[in-house]
This record gives sequence, C-alpha cells and structure tokens, in this order.
Amino acid sequence: MHLQLEQWRHVFKLDPDRELSDEALERICLSGTDAVMVGGSSGVTFDNTVDLLARIRRYEVPCVLEVSEQEAIVPGFDLFLIPIVLNARNPEWIVGRQRQALREYGAIMDWSQIVTEGYIILNGDSTAARVTDAEAELDLKDVEAYARMADRLFRCPIVYMEYSGMFGNMDDVKRVRGLLATARLFYGGGVDSPEKAVEATRSAHTVVVGNAVYHDLEQALATVKAVKESV
Amino acid sequence: MHLQLEQWRHVFKLDPDRELSDEALERICLSGTDAVMVGGSSGVTFDNTVDLLARIRRYEVPCVLEVSEQEAIVPGFDLFLIPIVLNARNPEWIVGRQRQALREYGAIMDWSQIVTEGYIILNGDSTAARVTDAEAELDLKDVEAYARMADRLFRCPIVYMEYSGMFGNMDDVKRVRGLLATARLFYGGGVDSPEKAVEATRSAHTVVVGNAVYHDLEQALATVKAVKESV
Repeated sequence: MHLQLEQWRHVFKLDPDRELSDEALERICLSGTDAVMVGGSSGVTFDNTVDLLARIRRYEVPCVLEVSEQEAIVPGFDLFLIPIVLNARNPEWIVGRQRQALREYGAIMDWSQIVTEGYIILNGDSTAARVTDAEAELDLKDVEAYARMADRLFRCPIVYMEYSGMFGNMDDVKRVRGLLATARLFYGGGVDSPEKAVEATRSAHTVVVGNAVYHDLEQALATVKAVKESV
Repeated sequence: MHLQLEQWRHVFKLDPDRELSDEALERICLSGTDAVMVGGSSGVTFDNTVDLLARIRRYEVPCVLEVSEQEAIVPGFDLFLIPIVLNARNPEWIVGRQRQALREYGAIMDWSQIVTEGYIILNGDSTAARVTDAEAELDLKDVEAYARMADRLFRCPIVYMEYSGMFGNMDDVKRVRGLLATARLFYGGGVDSPEKAVEATRSAHTVVVGNAVYHDLEQALATVKAVKESV
C-alpha cells in the first residue's frame, strides 16, 4: 500500500485553522509518530493549509492531507485522503463534493496518491457531525454495516471511526477491526493521555491524536511512546 | 474476476414483475447471451424473483440478481450485483439500503458473490430515476466524475450507464469507457435492434438488453448475434 500505510500505528492530526508554535510543531514532527495528517472540519483554506504544509516539510515525517475543502487542495502532500462520510444525511459528503473535485481534477490526478477513507462519525455533538449532518446515533450493528460497506463494497483502504472530542467505546472499535477484510481501522477521538492511547491501540490499527495537541502537548507527545511500546 | 464478468459482452435483463412465456424465456436463455440479469425498478418481490430464478435455472446460462429490494434477495443466484446510485439525490440509494442489507446479512454474506455497480442514471423520465430521485441532467464532465468515483475511489467492478428506455449518447459512453482503469462499463437503454446493439457494443464493454425483450422479442434476440459478431 501507499507509504506503508498498513504500518502506521500512530498519527498526529493537525488543524490548519489552529495556532501551533514552531517549537510545538518541531516536537510533533520529531516525536516518532508515523505520519502527520493535515485536516479540519471548519476554517480550512488554501492559505492556512499551504502554510502548515511548508512548516511540516522542514521535517522528514510523512505528511498527508485529509481533503475537506476543494479550495484547500494543496499540491505537495505525500498522500491525499478522501473522506466518504458514510453516515452523512447530506449526500454532499458522500458523493457530492467528491464529484465536484473529480470534475475539476479527475483527469490530472495521480491516483497512486489518493486513498479513500470510509468515515463513520460517532459523536453527534462534534463539528464534523454538524457540518455533515451525520446520523451519529448508531448501534453496533449499524456501525458494523458501514464498516463492511467501506471495506467490502467500496474497498476503502481506511475505515475511520471518528468520535472527535470524546473517547469511544473500545469494545465496538475492536469488534469493527475484527470484521475488516483488507481495510485498516483508524480510530480518532479523545486520545489525550498515554493510557487512552494504549487502550485505543489495542482496539484499532491506527490511533489518531488531534485535539490533545492543542490542549496538553506533553500528554499528546506521550501518546507516541505509549502506542509504540504497546505494539 | 467473478464468472468471467470481464468477458461479458451481452446481457439480457429480465424484470420479475413482467410476464414472459416459457417459450420466450427458453429462447432468451439459449440465445448465446453471456448472462441473464434479474432485476427491476418496481414491483420486485421475493415470490416473483424466486419464481423467475427457478425458471431460468432450467438452463445453463449464468444468472445474476441485481438487488433493489432487500425483501427480494433470493439465494441461489450466481452473483449478486449491488447498485450504488451515484447520482441519487436520496442517500437511501447510495448507502442507506446497502446499510440495511448489510445490517441483516453482512455477517453471513459470501463476498466472492458480491459485485458493486456504480450506477449513473441518465434518463430523468425513467422509473429508476423517479424512484431514486436521480439528478439525471448531467453534462459529460459530471458523468466522467461519477465514473472515476466508481472506478477509482470506490473500486466498483462495474460502472453502469443507465439510459433506461432511451438510447444514449454513444460518444459519451465511449468517452467514459476510455477513462476507466479497472471497471467494466455496462450500457443499458433503448437497445431494441441489432443496429443499436452494434453501436452500443462499440462504445461500452457490455450491452444490456431489457425492455426490448418485452416489446419485440425477435429484435431483442437478434441483438445477441449482432454483438457477438461485431466483437
């Protein structure tokens, strides 16, 4: 697969719309994390994305863009992750924006750099849920159905369980990991300490640490070692 | 791929909700077509589907089900085609029904028998368009975007341009075939004569003949030879 995606165990997710000092960014990029993902649910622009990319590119860590705004598609990332929000009520987030982007760039895209993510948004109070009008009140059977849809029907390389801001149900996460045939399970949400990182890494293939970077950098950095040692 | 799907050039599509004499069915099944697809946009039930399957099973022709109603999923077909209506305005037809079916059967499905179809419905007056609330007024760029989405993002084995009841724009069909990386292009709509079948087979990978069976069986049967000879 791309860039050894299947070996990623820990990823930092940085929001172009949030402030981060040069020192903090350096520590993140040198932390030993497997990749830095750039993306956010609101306020993402071409300018703040290209700025963050340029700052991350001073380091060797793989840097990937999770595309949410067509206007913010900046060339030069290692990979472009395309989220398909499976439980969006608004088809704009399932196929609509993707169609617009493919309409513009489809003929010139380097497909070896494109990775589809089958997203399941599980915190109804999150910005991501509001923006996509996600039906977040799902039982485990629904989540399993979406996971199989992403893995088997759409053959997405990544299934992403996004609890954004809240620590999820690890039993559910583990169940979903167990039923995937080829996709990797990314887990995101509420990983703000080494302890939570260990729990998450025992349940998902890849743990994404986002908000903690902005709230408690030391704890966020400590998740890298916790994940690596528990593997 | 499944059942040499990649070698199919001609397919008859039979609607379980429409009458067909035993004699007509025999001629269809012995026509030399590559497969018989069972499916329809309305009135499809378990009973009429199982009945049609049993009648087709007297012959050796491959027989596949295009799933539109969860209640009409009858075991015993060679393949189960799962349409994803990419230009449906109602997400029910993109992911909703698929989720329901996977919720029920996901754990016991034989995935080697499942084939995802990326559908693009191009006749706004058709029953399929009305049922799915399809946005059928698409320009070529939109169609190309959906085709790339199905082929590249969702890795569907089949992209299906459905003009249902009307003969499509063969230049557009040929364009789309040319941009597919791995998917097969199925064409359906208005193939009611050997001449149209030849045109369609020069533009798509696989030609689907449906309504003509019910309107003019002789002409419908003649499409098989026309397709086979023009390959």
